Amino acid sequence: MKLPACATLLLHLDGGVLHLTLNRPDCRNAMSLAMVEELREVLGWLRDQPDVRALVVRGAGGHFCAGGDIRDMAAARAQGAAAYRTLNRSFGSLLEEAQAIPQVLIAVLEGAVLGGGLGLACVCDIAIARDDAQFGLPETTLGVLPAQIAPFVAARIGLTQARRLALTAARFDGSQAERLGLVHFSESTEDALEHRLAETLAQVRRCAPQANARTKALLLASQQQALGPLLDLAAEQFAAAVTGAEGAEGTRAFVEKRPPSWAQ
Amino acid sequence: MKLPACATLLLHLDGGVLHLTLNRPDCRNAMSLAMVEELREVLGWLRDQPDVRALVVRGAGGHFCAGGDIRDMAAARAQGAAAYRTLNRSFGSLLEEAQAIPQVLIAVLEGAVLGGGLGLACVCDIAIARDDAQFGLPETTLGVLPAQIAPFVAARIGLTQARRLALTAARFDGSQAERLGLVHFSESTEDALEHRLAETLAQVRRCAPQANARTKALLLASQQQALGPLLDLAAEQFAAAVTGAEGAEGTRAFVEKRPPSWAQ
Amino acid sequence: MKLPACATLLLHLDGGVLHLTLNRPDCRNAMSLAMVEELREVLGWLRDQPDVRALVVRGAGGHFCAGGDIRDMAAARAQGAAAYRTLNRSFGSLLEEAQAIPQVLIAVLEGAVLGGGLGLACVCDIAIARDDAQFGLPETTLGVLPAQIAPFVAARIGLTQARRLALTAARFDGSQAERLGLVHFSESTEDALEHRLAETLAQVRRCAPQANARTKALLLASQQQALGPLLDLAAEQFAAAVTGAEGAEGTRAFVEKRPPSWAQ
Repeated sequence: MKLPACATLLLHLDGGVLHLTLNRPDCRNAMSLAMVEELREVLGWLRDQPDVRALVVRGAGGHFCAGGDIRDMAAARAQGAAAYRTLNRSFGSLLEEAQAIPQVLIAVLEGAVLGGGLGLACVCDIAIARDDAQFGLPETTLGVLPAQIAPFVAARIGLTQARRLALTAARFDGSQAERLGLVHFSESTEDALEHRLAETLAQVRRCAPQANARTKALLLASQQQALGPLLDLAAEQFAAAVTGAEGAEGTRAFVEKRPPSWAQ
Repeated sequence: MKLPACATLLLHLDGGVLHLTLNRPDCRNAMSLAMVEELREVLGWLRDQPDVRALVVRGAGGHFCAGGDIRDMAAARAQGAAAYRTLNRSFGSLLEEAQAIPQVLIAVLEGAVLGGGLGLACVCDIAIARDDAQFGLPETTLGVLPAQIAPFVAARIGLTQARRLALTAARFDGSQAERLGLVHFSESTEDALEHRLAETLAQVRRCAPQANARTKALLLASQQQALGPLLDLAAEQFAAAVTGAEGAEGTRAFVEKRPPSWAQ
Repeated sequence: MKLPACATLLLHLDGGVLHLTLNRPDCRNAMSLAMVEELREVLGWLRDQPDVRALVVRGAGGHFCAGGDIRDMAAARAQGAAAYRTLNRSFGSLLEEAQAIPQVLIAVLEGAVLGGGLGLACVCDIAIARDDAQFGLPETTLGVLPAQIAPFVAARIGLTQARRLALTAARFDGSQAERLGLVHFSESTEDALEHRLAETLAQVRRCAPQANARTKALLLASQQQALGPLLDLAAEQFAAAVTGAEGAEGTRAFVEKRPPSWAQ
């Protein structure tokens, strides 16, 4: 399988899991326009890779991502407001696309998880932080807005917590992020973090890939679709799943008391 | 008052509270098609019973409900995909109807609370668990989907937690269910559980039945209706309540420093 | 700057922060029609005061607000159902308007936070409680409905917790309110409460006022608008902010390693 070629990202495929590392450690993996474009390319590629079941995103050098890139901002300033609009919206498209990939998206959050980095954490299916990671939305202290990020933060932790964080720029650590429901786990050591990631991947491997992809799509649809039609669609998909290859294999494996093919 | 006749459920009416026990202990109260139909019949009957103020649902034999019934699934297999669709959708209708009953719906959750059992827990107004109850969404490990259940889980505990649980099939206990906000209370002993249930029913009895029914409907409507029209409707209902029989009795009882008629 | 004249409220402007005290301590600051009208007048005035960056609301005499005023209810009774409808709806309008002000709205919650008082707490951007504050929705024990309040409680803490609180009228304290996510902080002493308020105001002062106002509007819009169009609008506003006065000052201050003008 040929992986996309990237300058700002490291990619490594292992046993159906794509490990992606944001790789600009000299600037705490600040989200440059080039990085946004490469991430979107990888996400587009993943949509057609049914054999890849999970995507693990982390940052190089002890930080996840410190937010937007100052140099891109300076370049946009020379071009005027329209360039800012395009730059900003493309990051929102990245978040929309990351949220929608059929794979299980797992984030490993260390060091700085700020601004756009926090936005990216908010679209992951499973987020695992270090206790001492530093989260925050510093935008309004700089006179700008967490524009593309704010809706994803509100969807992640609810309006009540999102408004305090966005309107005070308060910093918070991994333990607090867990209490807020922004991450699922916060771990005190590197070992514990890696152990939690391994455990999570083992759990994901027990789940049928197509069934997981359809379940994820149903969960996302439930945030915007009326309940009745959604349940009609869900019944349709249930019938297709149970009569399809995964449902047949899952039922047989259950009766034969053995793990199904995807869990081996 | 004549209760519906049921083969899979035990019904017992006591002081305005209907106690309903899922009664297939030999298969951990797996939700058969017959049980779904009987539950829907009881819920339909309850809609016209203004003297019943609360419905308490629990399972026989130490388990709440282990999910869908394997034998019904096998029978549907012989009939093809359309039979699965109908079977699956009828469970979703049960959840929609359970959520909408005018009575306060209380679940007592012990042992297995899996798949469809977890779905049923998610539409209760008040959920009380044992610490050692076992919750989980095992569907995708079998190659199928928590199809009718997923939207109710997302509505119950939010998208962030729902996606992890659905995409990993992770098991969790009553204490974790309380931290996730899936249940309101988790208790360590049978005694504490029964005490919590009795306390909750005593609280519900202090509340006027019609006022509670209308308040519940407003809360559910707030999840799908725009705020302005909802507040208009709420003002209409407030005026009707305060000038109606319960409002008059409540006001008089308050002035006369005695419990109102419904609290006696 | 001339503040609105009020009979039921105390107003005090200090360093861009309006301190508002509900001032009917003889009846635990019960929300009379006159108080609702004065609050709405102050909120209307605030909409055109870009130099006011935060509004701090608290109650006189050790209580926040014990709910609606009994005397207004009695007067409405004489006028019939339409008067109740108008009275009730005007409180909902107050909540809608309080939620939408461009300033950061901070509530300090002591003593009774009941009924309408709890509703008002639910529209604040940041809520700081005393551990021993008493929260609750007693309406249905009186035969009436938390009609205008219920949708705001559900938006604040989610349907799952809101339904239990509204259908049992259970009382809960500041610590529980923090666990439920109704308030952001609960403090055990008066000193700790004032310290938390001062810290919060210091954080707000570091944030650019217009950027905060636009961010707040985006967060509120995210609760009702589809994601795509919202992100388009957000990109538009990001470009306007970064090329506007606050964005220019924020960028300059960052490069010059000094606090921006609004943080001084």
